[in-house]
Amino acid sequence: MKCFDVVVIGSSAGGLATALTGKSAYPEKSFLVVTKNEQTLVPCGIPYIFGSLPSSDKDIMPVKAKFDAAGIEMLVGQVSSIERENKVCCLSSGEKIGYDKLVIATGSNPVVPKWLSGATLPGVFTVPKDKNYLDALDEYLQKCDKIVVLGAGFIGLEISDELCKKGKDVTLVEKLDTVLPLAFDEDIANKVEELLVSRGVKVATGKTVKSIAKKDGKATGVVMEDGSVLDADAVILSIGYRPDVTLADSAKLGVNELGFISVDEYMRTSDKSIFAVGDCAAKHNFITRKSIGTMLASIAASEGRTAGLNLFGLSSLKTFNGAISIFSSALGEYGFGVAGLTEKFAKEEEIDFVVGSFEGLDKHPGTLPDTKKQYVKLVVARNSGLILGGAVYGGISSGEFTNVLGFIIQNKMTVYSLMISQIGTHPLLTDSPIGYPLVKAAATVISKLKKKRGI
Amino acid sequence: MKCFDVVVIGSSAGGLATALTGKSAYPEKSFLVVTKNEQTLVPCGIPYIFGSLPSSDKDIMPVKAKFDAAGIEMLVGQVSSIERENKVCCLSSGEKIGYDKLVIATGSNPVVPKWLSGATLPGVFTVPKDKNYLDALDEYLQKCDKIVVLGAGFIGLEISDELCKKGKDVTLVEKLDTVLPLAFDEDIANKVEELLVSRGVKVATGKTVKSIAKKDGKATGVVMEDGSVLDADAVILSIGYRPDVTLADSAKLGVNELGFISVDEYMRTSDKSIFAVGDCAAKHNFITRKSIGTMLASIAASEGRTAGLNLFGLSSLKTFNGAISIFSSALGEYGFGVAGLTEKFAKEEEIDFVVGSFEGLDKHPGTLPDTKKQYVKLVVARNSGLILGGAVYGGISSGEFTNVLGFIIQNKMTVYSLMISQIGTHPLLTDSPIGYPLVKAAATVISKLKKKRGI
Repeated sequence: MKCFDVVVIGSSAGGLATALTGKSAYPEKSFLVVTKNEQTLVPCGIPYIFGSLPSSDKDIMPVKAKFDAAGIEMLVGQVSSIERENKVCCLSSGEKIGYDKLVIATGSNPVVPKWLSGATLPGVFTVPKDKNYLDALDEYLQKCDKIVVLGAGFIGLEISDELCKKGKDVTLVEKLDTVLPLAFDEDIANKVEELLVSRGVKVATGKTVKSIAKKDGKATGVVMEDGSVLDADAVILSIGYRPDVTLADSAKLGVNELGFISVDEYMRTSDKSIFAVGDCAAKHNFITRKSIGTMLASIAASEGRTAGLNLFGLSSLKTFNGAISIFSSALGEYGFGVAGLTEKFAKEEEIDFVVGSFEGLDKHPGTLPDTKKQYVKLVVARNSGLILGGAVYGGISSGEFTNVLGFIIQNKMTVYSLMISQIGTHPLLTDSPIGYPLVKAAATVISKLKKKRGI
Repeated sequence: MKCFDVVVIGSSAGGLATALTGKSAYPEKSFLVVTKNEQTLVPCGIPYIFGSLPSSDKDIMPVKAKFDAAGIEMLVGQVSSIERENKVCCLSSGEKIGYDKLVIATGSNPVVPKWLSGATLPGVFTVPKDKNYLDALDEYLQKCDKIVVLGAGFIGLEISDELCKKGKDVTLVEKLDTVLPLAFDEDIANKVEELLVSRGVKVATGKTVKSIAKKDGKATGVVMEDGSVLDADAVILSIGYRPDVTLADSAKLGVNELGFISVDEYMRTSDKSIFAVGDCAAKHNFITRKSIGTMLASIAASEGRTAGLNLFGLSSLKTFNGAISIFSSALGEYGFGVAGLTEKFAKEEEIDFVVGSFEGLDKHPGTLPDTKKQYVKLVVARNSGLILGGAVYGGISSGEFTNVLGFIIQNKMTVYSLMISQIGTHPLLTDSPIGYPLVKAAATVISKLKKKRGI
């Protein structure tokens, strides 16, 4: 039986980051990554294989090359069970592999809702991280004219826009009142919806789907709660993902109330030799410590780095606990993002907070060609002035700007320290030193705090 | 005699930020801003009036409107002296104005070097923040074909590119070995130079100018140290700015060894009732506390916010001292920026440091249209792993990315905490969660630190 110091199950963002970081931190240890497929897709690139990219072949992570360069072995196969007492992985091929440390990065699978009759009919698809499935879907969609996408999260939104760019008649249906309802407050969600509509996507928010319409055993559209029918040649379900914990479950590792593998802040499961990272691993909100179901490749990667550095003892300690959920996306020349708490979440959690926002520009003066508005919002704890969350809608610098927000939150900055921070500005790249929307939003919050305190 | 609680002299970035922030922090106090001109230019927008903008009329800060909205008075005039004992400003019109707190934001003026014979000839220009002068220059340049720009700092670089875009034959001359020699190390400076050359600007680095060539009492080019002559219809001097401290000097306020008004960390001069902010106020490096001559509107604005919040007692304390010099600029679709120490500066100051860099992409996968490379470099203190500086060269998200670097430095992050930070990524907006160049550069540094320690 072959034995490795570290065996990683899964080669997407979480597994990959763990293996690469771990090998770099512990070069003397042997690493093996077991992956289901020879090729691993760039997970967040998946929506773009339907439009901007010529095919899924252009959305491949060069994992084998990275592993080779790092001195990590890779094995294509499926781990079917774990014998914890012997520290052995059993593969479906019958092969057994010994480990000292095991990392479970089995990811997530798309939800096919049981309540939706017809959800498994031909013509109804999900968006799994599976190249063969997606290639078949892509081929199928080429022949379709009308497409209905159910669920306006990031994947549903991005796929709708991509298919629309390709000339398809796309309707995006969302049960809640806005697009991206879990990520953004109404202010930004409404801007995104307007933009999406202006780009040709039909958007139906606040609409509940009852069932899939069918004819001759094939999906022909969706039946809405009000009885109306949206015709479609294909229906795409993008209503969420569920962590893949089959392996962890069978090994009797603890799973939390949302169905994720329970881990500590360093991604260690209830078994000290076993780590879990990425979509299958439990996450909690950084303020309330409540379990959350956020799944993001960027969170997976940061979990992988944390696990990798701490595989053989906690050497890289965290100064910030919990997931702050940093999302960003783009439609054409517009980008938008969010980090930390939304106003909605803060309200639900009964946090005593103040909001400040400001709409400026992404260049200055605004008379420069291609200048776009930049809207920035901050959610701030009333007493301490601590910045709990922020969001942006603007040009394509919004992605990196979202990371500005992320670092502000992770460093526990207050509006007061933000107000006197040094910030770089340039006419072609940002708003002016005076008008920089982030600082203006902070100033708005400070004014509100003063008024409330009667100062 | 009219009296105000606060009198601010100057309405550019520093004065404007002080007045607006101050009035918002102390709404019950009366504020007056004395400004030399009815119209204030957006300072960093000045290079763009020669190309991207139709004229300087499109590069105006709406200061009057901002002051009106905030309840701040504005007076067009020139303060000629300060009677500190009586707390009175004397205007050149003869008018006197009393103050409780005075803020000097008199800015800087372009250097006209005494060693350069012919520097004051007709046909030789500087780039002051003076609309009338710049309008005359713009008009003059329209009739010129060949233009020589002396000094490849940000202003020289940006003006050269703008004039070149307008079809002029532009040569940019720099005494030091690279463009932007004070802001960037060679790695990025060379990329910028290549880009500038590809855009049509002739660049002559490492070339010393001896004098201005003349004929009929008018400049006709520049004579180089080696005797060669560069013909020119106009010569633009962009070789630096000197703080305008005439007023402070005459009021016997302390001035430091570089000629800037001495201030404490809250922008207070040696007279507790007088503050100084912006280009005229002293700055020091955040690591060595050495005096530095950096002049940036963004620094001016952060100084203005600091002064404004603390005009009547220190209520907003700083957790980070010194100037970290956050610069960014762009040429076409490429952006570049720097925050904190360069490698060059760290060497000169004999800091024990390690450098790590990584070239990734600004989108992912790199097969997406318009993907650009993103090069990130970190300068890190060897023992603590503290991040002292960072630089980027990439697409136009480089401006906001430079602020990511700025916040990392201001929050005193180490490569270790950066490595396990959460970072948002998106195919259209950033590199991948695995390849994000900032984190890869940090990983490179950590590997080097390990090797040096023999771990």
